[in-house]
Amino acid sequence: MASLNFGNERNHTSTFNNNPLDPEEFRRQGHMLIDFIADYYLNVEKYPVQSQVEPGYLRQRLPESAPCNPEPIETILKDVQEHIVPGITHWQSPNFFAYFPSSGSTAGFLGEILSAGFNVVGFNWIASPAATELETIVVDWLGEMLRLPKSFLFSGNGGGVLQGTTCEAILCTLVAARDQMLSKIGRDNLRRLVVYGSDQTHSALQKAARIAGIHPKNFRAVKTTKSTSFALSPDSLKSEICKDIEEGLVPLFLCATVGTTSTTAVDPLGALCHVAKDYGMWVHVDAAYAGSACICPEFRHFMDGVEGANSFSLNAHKWFLTTLDCCCLWVKDPSALIKSLSTNPEFLRNKATESRQVVDYKDWQITLSRKFRALKLWFVLRSYGVANLKNFLRSHVEMAKLFEGLVAMDKRFEIVVPRNFAMVCFRVLQKAMGMRQLKQAHQNGHVENGHKVVEEEEGSSNEVNQKLLESINMSGRVFMTHAVVGKVYAIRFAVGASLVEERHVIMAWKVVQEHATAILSTN
Amino acid sequence: MASLNFGNERNHTSTFNNNPLDPEEFRRQGHMLIDFIADYYLNVEKYPVQSQVEPGYLRQRLPESAPCNPEPIETILKDVQEHIVPGITHWQSPNFFAYFPSSGSTAGFLGEILSAGFNVVGFNWIASPAATELETIVVDWLGEMLRLPKSFLFSGNGGGVLQGTTCEAILCTLVAARDQMLSKIGRDNLRRLVVYGSDQTHSALQKAARIAGIHPKNFRAVKTTKSTSFALSPDSLKSEICKDIEEGLVPLFLCATVGTTSTTAVDPLGALCHVAKDYGMWVHVDAAYAGSACICPEFRHFMDGVEGANSFSLNAHKWFLTTLDCCCLWVKDPSALIKSLSTNPEFLRNKATESRQVVDYKDWQITLSRKFRALKLWFVLRSYGVANLKNFLRSHVEMAKLFEGLVAMDKRFEIVVPRNFAMVCFRVLQKAMGMRQLKQAHQNGHVENGHKVVEEEEGSSNEVNQKLLESINMSGRVFMTHAVVGKVYAIRFAVGASLVEERHVIMAWKVVQEHATAILSTN
Repeated sequence: MASLNFGNERNHTSTFNNNPLDPEEFRRQGHMLIDFIADYYLNVEKYPVQSQVEPGYLRQRLPESAPCNPEPIETILKDVQEHIVPGITHWQSPNFFAYFPSSGSTAGFLGEILSAGFNVVGFNWIASPAATELETIVVDWLGEMLRLPKSFLFSGNGGGVLQGTTCEAILCTLVAARDQMLSKIGRDNLRRLVVYGSDQTHSALQKAARIAGIHPKNFRAVKTTKSTSFALSPDSLKSEICKDIEEGLVPLFLCATVGTTSTTAVDPLGALCHVAKDYGMWVHVDAAYAGSACICPEFRHFMDGVEGANSFSLNAHKWFLTTLDCCCLWVKDPSALIKSLSTNPEFLRNKATESRQVVDYKDWQITLSRKFRALKLWFVLRSYGVANLKNFLRSHVEMAKLFEGLVAMDKRFEIVVPRNFAMVCFRVLQKAMGMRQLKQAHQNGHVENGHKVVEEEEGSSNEVNQKLLESINMSGRVFMTHAVVGKVYAIRFAVGASLVEERHVIMAWKVVQEHATAILSTN
Repeated sequence: MASLNFGNERNHTSTFNNNPLDPEEFRRQGHMLIDFIADYYLNVEKYPVQSQVEPGYLRQRLPESAPCNPEPIETILKDVQEHIVPGITHWQSPNFFAYFPSSGSTAGFLGEILSAGFNVVGFNWIASPAATELETIVVDWLGEMLRLPKSFLFSGNGGGVLQGTTCEAILCTLVAARDQMLSKIGRDNLRRLVVYGSDQTHSALQKAARIAGIHPKNFRAVKTTKSTSFALSPDSLKSEICKDIEEGLVPLFLCATVGTTSTTAVDPLGALCHVAKDYGMWVHVDAAYAGSACICPEFRHFMDGVEGANSFSLNAHKWFLTTLDCCCLWVKDPSALIKSLSTNPEFLRNKATESRQVVDYKDWQITLSRKFRALKLWFVLRSYGVANLKNFLRSHVEMAKLFEGLVAMDKRFEIVVPRNFAMVCFRVLQKAMGMRQLKQAHQNGHVENGHKVVEEEEGSSNEVNQKLLESINMSGRVFMTHAVVGKVYAIRFAVGASLVEERHVIMAWKVVQEHATAILSTN
């Protein structure tokens, strides 16, 4: 390849090749990066899992403005190691048990980098037919693995699409539902529409409702309780709906969850869809985390009732070895999405679109530009195969069971809610706090008032668990996060990092025990 | 690394390593992929630029369901070469002159793959401090390179964020503007709000307005004409606004464009912001394509007046060597974004957020999860340096000038609108069509009616140009797209592929001439 003439300012260093995509320079630097990342995985256990830097650390270390002249890749990578790695919370560490996993894999990575290499903008079919067609194929493949009803698949006149995140999937389906409803009851009724979830539903729902112009007063987070393991009760939903209808409002949209963020609770899809159907509502099923597990026959029942829903999504980038971002969304009625989200600017007009023989995914999502995301999911499905993918997920569930067993054997702790998948919610118990606190409670006169004691104990127990979690995370040896359900502060232990092995789970439990012992003795 | 126990279904092939992120297997396959992509760039000129496949080609070639057992990477890559590459429209080809460029680079690619390697989910500061902090730094760097007013930078109490695409940037700012206005005039006035652009504004604006619940009747695409080179006239805007106010509506949002999609027209920011200010409107400046060029002093004047706007965005993934996706958005008042887009779920609560010393970017965008996008922009800025980046952009402008000169020398063609950046709009002229058509027009009696002749001629000229473009693209040798402005069908020639050199531009012009000669002779 000949080089561009970059004028007088060129050639400040020999590293800068004038053509920014020169294949041989690309090859040289690409190999260097692969080794850098492979070495990172080799060493990832050595770093504190949660970054220990202070706010503003990086601005002090980097120059105030971009360099005038090129810098060699060697210098940049040295800076990555020295300045960026310490500021990273290591989601790929086998000692990462926080949030939900972001499970990387070699196959997912390869698909991602191939997509970056092609760097096509697949807004419509013609802009790169393979990007669209591979996407329609892999979403059908995955849909079949999940035993989604055929009505959600292209082969059954539904269809799937790869979006970035669940937030986008919810916003797109909500807007489709909104416009479908307004076309029936009249455009001026926007302020009457009501959106429903539970108090366990992901905050993405409320945010989507806000963005879509749903009146803030018309968002319902229906209360759940421990008695249903924090699943949404169809009766509670129905009674909220009835109240709203009495007030002249119009029930629009329900987001049900398979595997809530706090506790992986599972809403009863069948009964909820039944209620929603009576009112002509759109039901979206958010299975961002737990959907992956449903490819295993023994977990598939958590999705039972999905046949009554309008749309279903899961994040392959959470617990399915696919690099961030990759949210798989299936809908029964793609035309509802398309009616709301299609645009037809002149510069994109083409014969393929006019033939109506192709899918133009720009009309299934918020953005026009879109990456070739299907590659990474295709690579994952093929590189690992369905049988191994099931076993991969099962191995994490087994490790979570192991952890659960360890917690159960230590009487200072309790499991806060029953485990459904590979996440354990636990806490250290108040009664483990010893006599000092109890004595103090007596002195404060709290024993005379039973209810007050319980409340105070819960509050103080929450405080201890918060302290425990902070102390664990500050050690850098493992990273976990928390939830508060039914006023109880629980520590969440989510197994799912691709590098995790039993020994990490066992070590994590030892870390918890050590810190609990230290905290309980000083309290 | 020890391996997970995958049970009985394991070890179907020796290629599948039980740990999906085993560092040495990652290294082996990663190097293989780098060579695959480097070879792709070496050979990219050999492929037809626009894919020549038929709708549905891929489903016939791939299995109906995902494989049960693992397949080796060698098999997968063979399939990529045989089945995916033919279905790709090669945006990285030096003969790609369509749409706007998607300019990849080694540095952008490296940053992207490093981000995929770390695979962190940087929703808030604590989830990976480096991801947030590097982002605040690079957007300030780039903002300074653009000489954005300090009020748009973190150093001046504004701030920038990396979003996926302009569609998201427009939607976020529109929602912020909407909520800010509704908090003044009352939440129930949503249906009175009006959004303005020109008939040249990107379709992203109308789509964002729809998603945000703006009443479809309240979207204004103000007409532009050739007399202003299709730039939005402040007078036209003002008169639309006045009409709306008379009807009791409330002007909310103006999207002005620096470098429209059809013709790279530039709206006069200063005068437009002046009008908008009188009505308390939010002005967003969409410089998706042309913003990059404004780092060069000689193009900076196209942004003059931006100081009156509320927000400004450009796509580094278009013409700034940064892999898709990377839209840089700056706002003067981040708190407006945050008020509309923040969520505060319990599971994300942390001390850093509570200290108010950190940026939590989840509150600046639609989605919660977010990639470590800053790495790729940082790699680009450092690997190439500001001086070379300017020259890179200039070299494309020079090549577009060269093409423009070639068009001007062939009397059969005309330049449709003046060139501003690296895109040329041209067409073959009706009068070049020879005597046969003119005779036919005479026979149809059209010469008696001056106006009708012009209209018919324009229509038939458009048809010829459409035919010409189709014929050029079907050759596979180059790929261009079209625009229709002022009823004129123009062929767009956008220089910007990273591998492009003068010889490609000269060859592209020869291809145009050849096809024009063939079409004009058979017409």
